[in-house]
Amino acid sequence: MVGGGQGAFIGGVHRQAMALDGQYELVAGALSSTPERALASGRALGLPDERNHPAWQALLEDEQRRAPGDRVDVVCIVTPNHLHFPVAKAFVDAGFHVVCDKPLVHTAAQAEALVAAVRSRATVFGVTYNYGGYPMVRQAREMVRRGELGEIRKVVVEYNQGWLATRLEAEGNKQAAWRSDPAQSGGAGALGDIGSHAENLVATVTGLHIESLCADLTAFVEGRALDDDANMLLRFQGGARGVLVASQVNAGLENGLRLRVSGTLGTIEWWQEEPNRLTHFPLDAAPRLLTRGAPWLHEAAKRASRIPPGHPEGFIEAFANVYLGVAAAIRAQGSGQAADPIDADFPDVEAGARGVRFIEAVLASARSTQKWTPVA
Amino acid sequence: MVGGGQGAFIGGVHRQAMALDGQYELVAGALSSTPERALASGRALGLPDERNHPAWQALLEDEQRRAPGDRVDVVCIVTPNHLHFPVAKAFVDAGFHVVCDKPLVHTAAQAEALVAAVRSRATVFGVTYNYGGYPMVRQAREMVRRGELGEIRKVVVEYNQGWLATRLEAEGNKQAAWRSDPAQSGGAGALGDIGSHAENLVATVTGLHIESLCADLTAFVEGRALDDDANMLLRFQGGARGVLVASQVNAGLENGLRLRVSGTLGTIEWWQEEPNRLTHFPLDAAPRLLTRGAPWLHEAAKRASRIPPGHPEGFIEAFANVYLGVAAAIRAQGSGQAADPIDADFPDVEAGARGVRFIEAVLASARSTQKWTPVA
Amino acid sequence: MVGGGQGAFIGGVHRQAMALDGQYELVAGALSSTPERALASGRALGLPDERNHPAWQALLEDEQRRAPGDRVDVVCIVTPNHLHFPVAKAFVDAGFHVVCDKPLVHTAAQAEALVAAVRSRATVFGVTYNYGGYPMVRQAREMVRRGELGEIRKVVVEYNQGWLATRLEAEGNKQAAWRSDPAQSGGAGALGDIGSHAENLVATVTGLHIESLCADLTAFVEGRALDDDANMLLRFQGGARGVLVASQVNAGLENGLRLRVSGTLGTIEWWQEEPNRLTHFPLDAAPRLLTRGAPWLHEAAKRASRIPPGHPEGFIEAFANVYLGVAAAIRAQGSGQAADPIDADFPDVEAGARGVRFIEAVLASARSTQKWTPVA
Amino acid sequence: MVGGGQGAFIGGVHRQAMALDGQYELVAGALSSTPERALASGRALGLPDERNHPAWQALLEDEQRRAPGDRVDVVCIVTPNHLHFPVAKAFVDAGFHVVCDKPLVHTAAQAEALVAAVRSRATVFGVTYNYGGYPMVRQAREMVRRGELGEIRKVVVEYNQGWLATRLEAEGNKQAAWRSDPAQSGGAGALGDIGSHAENLVATVTGLHIESLCADLTAFVEGRALDDDANMLLRFQGGARGVLVASQVNAGLENGLRLRVSGTLGTIEWWQEEPNRLTHFPLDAAPRLLTRGAPWLHEAAKRASRIPPGHPEGFIEAFANVYLGVAAAIRAQGSGQAADPIDADFPDVEAGARGVRFIEAVLASARSTQKWTPVA
Repeated sequence: MVGGGQGAFIGGVHRQAMALDGQYELVAGALSSTPERALASGRALGLPDERNHPAWQALLEDEQRRAPGDRVDVVCIVTPNHLHFPVAKAFVDAGFHVVCDKPLVHTAAQAEALVAAVRSRATVFGVTYNYGGYPMVRQAREMVRRGELGEIRKVVVEYNQGWLATRLEAEGNKQAAWRSDPAQSGGAGALGDIGSHAENLVATVTGLHIESLCADLTAFVEGRALDDDANMLLRFQGGARGVLVASQVNAGLENGLRLRVSGTLGTIEWWQEEPNRLTHFPLDAAPRLLTRGAPWLHEAAKRASRIPPGHPEGFIEAFANVYLGVAAAIRAQGSGQAADPIDADFPDVEAGARGVRFIEAVLASARSTQKWTPVA
Repeated sequence: MVGGGQGAFIGGVHRQAMALDGQYELVAGALSSTPERALASGRALGLPDERNHPAWQALLEDEQRRAPGDRVDVVCIVTPNHLHFPVAKAFVDAGFHVVCDKPLVHTAAQAEALVAAVRSRATVFGVTYNYGGYPMVRQAREMVRRGELGEIRKVVVEYNQGWLATRLEAEGNKQAAWRSDPAQSGGAGALGDIGSHAENLVATVTGLHIESLCADLTAFVEGRALDDDANMLLRFQGGARGVLVASQVNAGLENGLRLRVSGTLGTIEWWQEEPNRLTHFPLDAAPRLLTRGAPWLHEAAKRASRIPPGHPEGFIEAFANVYLGVAAAIRAQGSGQAADPIDADFPDVEAGARGVRFIEAVLASARSTQKWTPVA
Repeated sequence: MVGGGQGAFIGGVHRQAMALDGQYELVAGALSSTPERALASGRALGLPDERNHPAWQALLEDEQRRAPGDRVDVVCIVTPNHLHFPVAKAFVDAGFHVVCDKPLVHTAAQAEALVAAVRSRATVFGVTYNYGGYPMVRQAREMVRRGELGEIRKVVVEYNQGWLATRLEAEGNKQAAWRSDPAQSGGAGALGDIGSHAENLVATVTGLHIESLCADLTAFVEGRALDDDANMLLRFQGGARGVLVASQVNAGLENGLRLRVSGTLGTIEWWQEEPNRLTHFPLDAAPRLLTRGAPWLHEAAKRASRIPPGHPEGFIEAFANVYLGVAAAIRAQGSGQAADPIDADFPDVEAGARGVRFIEAVLASARSTQKWTPVA
Repeated sequence: MVGGGQGAFIGGVHRQAMALDGQYELVAGALSSTPERALASGRALGLPDERNHPAWQALLEDEQRRAPGDRVDVVCIVTPNHLHFPVAKAFVDAGFHVVCDKPLVHTAAQAEALVAAVRSRATVFGVTYNYGGYPMVRQAREMVRRGELGEIRKVVVEYNQGWLATRLEAEGNKQAAWRSDPAQSGGAGALGDIGSHAENLVATVTGLHIESLCADLTAFVEGRALDDDANMLLRFQGGARGVLVASQVNAGLENGLRLRVSGTLGTIEWWQEEPNRLTHFPLDAAPRLLTRGAPWLHEAAKRASRIPPGHPEGFIEAFANVYLGVAAAIRAQGSGQAADPIDADFPDVEAGARGVRFIEAVLASARSTQKWTPVA
């Protein structure tokens, strides 16, 4: 693991997600950007000294030096965004499988280089757009794929948080600090942090490609360098329309990711804060409450579930499903067999690259006086 | 009453709203656009023959002929949109108080003429943007006015229906037919029918003025002449941002009008389908469920409520509150005294005119390649 | 109308319910138990002096004196409970149709006498157990009748309020005062006020008869003479089991009437505070959200609805449905034709008598050390 | 681990709960009641042969033979109920810490013997009443303890499932089979399986002791030997009243555990199926939505949470909290220091024994014609 040491939030989630199903073991790390904190973090997590490194370069070097059977199988990158590219590129080039946090990298050019490297080395590369790991999101995707909603017309996705309604980055909050620093976070604030999740959720569930968009970005909190509120109109290839809202200044809200997809045959709604439920509004019948684990769900949803209906699963379980997908792909590659696509289900480097192109298009649109900006 | 005869939907609602509180009595009418249906509708409602007219012009003539004490106090116009202007103008010019359905008229020029006429004759003129009649919407407005949400930053309003997901207008549905006919409905489809309600709700609750907007209108259903889906970004005077979505092709949805307003001190959410509740998310405390009739509501909300908390009030009651507001204004005018602003609370002709300008700006934006179109 | 004058709550609801659909007109009254207040109340409501009476006996006398065509069609009794019997009995004996509030009377003997009088005079007699007027309750009843839930096994009904969590009756609250006074309210407190509604709701929806019950009544608030909390186990004829909870000391709750009915083929849940929705959990399919006005509802539910789905109806509308049912029965009787059972749908004097026997059995059980007390 | 092998449900949950926080490692087992299945289950979970045993006696023997530092720290018992007593007793007598599933044992006499053994050997003994592990349940308990609800008056707890609405035990369902077999499950069906959870939840949150109860047990499904529906009235020491409902024949329901507690100052409601939320209805203020992870929660709730508000935690996380509590107690004992009571928070052997006495009293009451049966 690279990053995710003391003071980090998402590193702990990654570790719990990995631990849950017993398919991962943390054996080495370079857990922070400062050597002292990196080593202290590794010790606290029980890493042996020889695999607890002060910097990611030392980790890479050490792993390369080891015999193949003694190496890590996969490297998890959970640093602030600006380090994703160099670290991921270096490990991929060295032939390691990688799980990297989102957004993947800062520029489309970096994304392209990384996609090329992954292809060339044929490594497994997962991006932790974790919301696609929820069973009911997979159910939604299957319903769209099977045509149960008909032709998709309209998508509304909102990701509303309130934790950055005040200038938290000026009060010593580490999470807020790097996210609002262009050098670490890139040119996008709320857009990159949560808007990119919204984009991925739409792409995952609908399979639609954004053709062009029209965005309005705002930094409401005085002194903030990056957007904390992003709104945009979307036009998809094929004629569907959409709206994407991502905001971190909805004072008092927690983690309000909500998706609504309408097609000619019906509508579905899913809310991340009540993730075990997907509401299906058919065109010509009473709305149905689809719940995680129910026997009438599609196989992809059922297999993403651990326990019976009514026993809620949550964020960590969804996150763990992404890790299970990566593990299935790595095992399949190791065995030389094609992976079962339902098992080896995770957002790959292409999904990560698409997210980067999306962010670039939004930033361009926000600067433009033209209504529509194409997405590459 | 003009319009609202057999086959109409909203006319019946107006009559129930008027009946509920015993302050209105239906005494005369010209209830349909065809003389036979008009007369039959009036007979069915118990109008005496001499006040049951085949056309609105005959009604106007008859009322003008009567002695002041024998005239109607107020004329309700519930026709398709294209008749609002001539009918309303004629009655206002003749000195009658008017309640008119929304959207007020087709063009900003008509709106201006009507505003001028109302001012000149000093009549009471209400527009039945009925959603502002809900007690919890009035609570929301009061909270904004008193600064309980701080400075408003963000507004998201959605009005999603599904009833026009198929080409109902081709299947003999009278409601669908006139709404999708530009000659009767004007240039706006879903935009005029429900988008205008969304605009009014935002204006009512926040008091903010839209400075410019960027709209995308679509007619999804083949053969439909007017938009059935409208999405737009909003910029308000003073810097707040917003998103407005209005769609009638969300297959399976009913009447999903939802409002979220965020300010520096908190967020509120209100859903028309559960109208007795307003959720308040303060910046620094647990979310509060505000319910209709609760003792801690503001006076404007309490006075708009008839029965105790937990005994749900609904759409008709909210509609009736608009009528109560008009009645209070008429009574005040009759008594020569200033009306209590909490009692005489209703959307006036200026609100109607603002709605017309909004629609014009949206239609212009939808045709434009420029991102932002100013609202007059 | 008898009772329902100044300071009353439910009288106003009755008047609004009658006004809503234009089938009732208030023409005479004896609106309070004190002559001055009665007359003042009548004047405030616009009753002409000659039909505004200081006491119900004067009203009766006056109506009897009038020519048949000049008499009231129906008398509404909305007094405190202890007056229901003498007033209702007198008017029925005089041949008037009656609508009476619940619980019907104080004793099973009175109930029997009233039932006999109604039968003998063949008058229409409605009891305003208003919750059965909700469209979704009628949908639930139809689903049970048609066997859509299979054989009923289990019923849980709760009616929880909080308004009597403190000793409101000692603070000048008129509603609380008569309800907690055995002389006016009878031997039952929360049991009579709201437990009787719960009993009626169960009987209405399931058609089941309570065979025996086991009750625990408590007066939590110091100094209160009647129960403010009632819990009981129910055994129905045929083997179904049930639980009924009625409490007015659930501090902070409003009007939480909730019903759950389970049969061999599924379960339904309905909550009065969100009355436009009925959730249906089939044994072998995804739960369905049934909403008022939806085309797939049964005719009895559809006909009890005024406006389209998604436009909420509430408590007053449900109350008005009871009045519509009585009006349909009266009209049918007047025309000498059998009433359409879907139109003439209202709780009759038998339902009222059954409620009285239920209360008597609960009071007996509460005093008993035996587990099961039979219901007559 | 004893039990929890192939075909079991809860064993896997225990293992995931242990894995989540990295404080447990599965090192030895006797995972099924048949030797072959036991060994196969252990191999599938990666147990080394020498610690993978065909029967629990072999496991015990082997562990006792090992040097203290090489022994397991704690034994988890997840067998059908009838084995809890012999296995738990043997391991406790041998000085091992134990985590045992619920209900603890079959008889109060066994419970007493086990309590005595635990006291005598001073081992840590946890019972996996897992619902007390939810952060919002701990918040509820704290609110009661601190008097925020005032004096408790009323408790209503329901645990409704539908999975046994048909005779699943006759269709090869292993979970249903042992639960409905008196030899394995004891004298209680739904009562023992889920009613005992409801009892524990009430005791955990309120701290109240049941003084006497009045129960009605039914086996609705033909051919079923044990109750599948349990309803009872509760009287608590000190005067509070309650109702407990546990049913497994609510066709279509999933895992509906719901608690409502009312005191003189307010009411709280918690639903297991939406576990991240606790609704607080104060006597004199607007209802509050308390959400997991919010800064205004009590320390005991905050410490039971892993990730920020709005990122749902679920059943496994709550289960894991019970294991974290046991681990904290074991560590404290190992270090010779008193455990932090917030960390070392888990249902102990006394809670398990109380649950057994509760079940015995309910069974006695169900057979009795007397209304009230005291709880020992």
